[in-house]
Amino acid sequence: MPRISAKGQAMPESPIRKLVPYAEAAIKKGRTIYQLNIGQPDIKTPAKALAAVRNNNIEVLSYSHSAGFESYRTKLAEYYRKHDINISANELIITTGGSEALLFTMGSICDAGDEVIIPEPFYANYNGFATASGVTVVPVKSKIEDSFALPPISEFEKLITPKTKAILICNPGNPTGYLYTKEEIDQLAEIVKKHDLFLVADEVYREFAYDGAKHYSIMSVPGLEQNAIMIDSVSKRYSMCGARIGCVVSKNKDFMATAMKFAQARLSPPTFAQIASEAALETEQEYFDEVIEEYTARRNTLVKGLEAIEGVRVANPKGAFYCIAELPVKDAEDFAKWLLESFELDNETVMVAPAAGFYSTPNTGLNQVRIAYVLKQKDLLRAIEILKAALKVYQG
Amino acid sequence: MPRISAKGQAMPESPIRKLVPYAEAAIKKGRTIYQLNIGQPDIKTPAKALAAVRNNNIEVLSYSHSAGFESYRTKLAEYYRKHDINISANELIITTGGSEALLFTMGSICDAGDEVIIPEPFYANYNGFATASGVTVVPVKSKIEDSFALPPISEFEKLITPKTKAILICNPGNPTGYLYTKEEIDQLAEIVKKHDLFLVADEVYREFAYDGAKHYSIMSVPGLEQNAIMIDSVSKRYSMCGARIGCVVSKNKDFMATAMKFAQARLSPPTFAQIASEAALETEQEYFDEVIEEYTARRNTLVKGLEAIEGVRVANPKGAFYCIAELPVKDAEDFAKWLLESFELDNETVMVAPAAGFYSTPNTGLNQVRIAYVLKQKDLLRAIEILKAALKVYQG
Repeated sequence: MPRISAKGQAMPESPIRKLVPYAEAAIKKGRTIYQLNIGQPDIKTPAKALAAVRNNNIEVLSYSHSAGFESYRTKLAEYYRKHDINISANELIITTGGSEALLFTMGSICDAGDEVIIPEPFYANYNGFATASGVTVVPVKSKIEDSFALPPISEFEKLITPKTKAILICNPGNPTGYLYTKEEIDQLAEIVKKHDLFLVADEVYREFAYDGAKHYSIMSVPGLEQNAIMIDSVSKRYSMCGARIGCVVSKNKDFMATAMKFAQARLSPPTFAQIASEAALETEQEYFDEVIEEYTARRNTLVKGLEAIEGVRVANPKGAFYCIAELPVKDAEDFAKWLLESFELDNETVMVAPAAGFYSTPNTGLNQVRIAYVLKQKDLLRAIEILKAALKVYQG
Repeated sequence: MPRISAKGQAMPESPIRKLVPYAEAAIKKGRTIYQLNIGQPDIKTPAKALAAVRNNNIEVLSYSHSAGFESYRTKLAEYYRKHDINISANELIITTGGSEALLFTMGSICDAGDEVIIPEPFYANYNGFATASGVTVVPVKSKIEDSFALPPISEFEKLITPKTKAILICNPGNPTGYLYTKEEIDQLAEIVKKHDLFLVADEVYREFAYDGAKHYSIMSVPGLEQNAIMIDSVSKRYSMCGARIGCVVSKNKDFMATAMKFAQARLSPPTFAQIASEAALETEQEYFDEVIEEYTARRNTLVKGLEAIEGVRVANPKGAFYCIAELPVKDAEDFAKWLLESFELDNETVMVAPAAGFYSTPNTGLNQVRIAYVLKQKDLLRAIEILKAALKVYQG
């Protein structure tokens, strides 16, 4: 019988999906679950984006350009210029989600066995893309007591080897909600320039910055043009996760030419989703203002509620829509399973993502969970109530 | 300055796209080009598929299941059962085009340095997916004088090493148009079972079989369940290349569980395109009958026309919508460029794909081109006329 590859065996299971069978069993029992485990917003997709797809008059659904519609790239570059990211249409390639942008990036800059340094905890699927690309993830630890700020640059330097090809950050961070300051980005810029590394920034949550904080893109750093690679996506910005449209952006011509070869091999990004994404660019500022207001309120509700539970510690997120919470339990995965399998408050329970899966270092974050505040405030309040009651029972 | 990876440098440029700058220059000069170089059909997408997207009532465009809509998988399995491919909904994963299905497959069964044997000439992007996956393509030569029939099994056996993980075929073939017989598939089945290899079949042109010939799927071979992996796509079947929906199909549970981990890492296939693809399954047989009739007529026109040109040899295709033609030139790439740069007949010219890019063996197929018969008959006739006149000038 033919066998699976070592790479295939090493592919990690998504920590977000691990508990799905337990959730399915709970639903079968008639239980209502407050899903705080995944970053699937309940926010409506901009009406203009959806209307553009409904009003399409395509007769032959043909391939598009491998880099994406030229009209879309032109308008998208304009959008970035409004966000202090001064790029042109040929400095971006439309991809099938941020996922594909990351795969093109790893393939273009890393060979098998090469290393990428990533502050942990990090978006768990980076592990999957790294494994698929034969790349080794080298974690550098950020801490809940520092709200997951950038680890000291000396910690990065200790980890740089001849095999190191890039530092990868997520800003604002999934799962931490941390928003890097200009100073932190500048420090990273300095170190990658010093060591001839790429700085890859997953900025898919760019527009989700709270409390008046401003996102500072790696694309805005003067002198970083040859090192900076930005990953983006429409998934969160316009609540269009199902579109599967992202992009990879860089001013490094060699990199773009190489990424383009990966893009050509897979022919083109999805056409309908590009129509939606192009139209989404017409979304009024009002939409974002409302969304930011809503997420700020949700974050405040969540953090306040969690902090009021004895033994819970939470890093107050400044961006994105996640936070990491430390719980008064030894094994958050066991607790998360138990919530689905054995606990209910008036036939309702809560689903959270155990945070250990977001760390690369073994046995780290075992008492932490990631909570996505993608539910309405009243549901968040109820979820916190359930969590509080559950912790009391679980500890007892 | 940070550097591109060796893998990135090794990524091949698509032979189909190589001539695009020359075509763009010709268009600028006001020239009309008959595009026989790419497999972009002019056939209309089924109205039902397009209507389903136009009539969608999505409010939040959310992630779908990583394996694709359950409703779509269920109906798709039914479709296959009607085509003598007896599978269930959990034996297939919906992918972003056949391209992603191939990437998941290579990642699941091959490690860096592993080998896949492919009869050449083959679909050029296999080279790209292999390079991206760190896989070595080992070509086995099929010949125009045999109409690109399966090379003798002894030729495959000579190439099998401990690193060989699979044999990959495209059936019916792009770029050859060759349709493997049941006997040929049975021979392949025997050899992969004997050597514990996977047999991967790209069957995206399944429905395009001419002259009453019947496509025989590797999924229909008794006893091959653990070895067979089928790649499919809606791109050609429904003229929906821009949807970017395909699937990977296997009864091997280990393989499917592994491919699923790759699928989870990239979250989900595109939602709008799945809506179109699910609705496309309702397409009446009439649509296919008309399409097959049209392509048969086009093929007949093309082959007859090409055979009438002195010095041209063509393998009569039994499926798909390509053929390989041998031209009375030394360097078909030079000729193809010249057609775009320097030739015109009443301000019109022809674009063909040099076939060398479809061979893995260097200096092979140098005098061959791939022609896609995706144009209306009157345009094909005109293209042949131009080609004939051009050859006369080029030779002289």
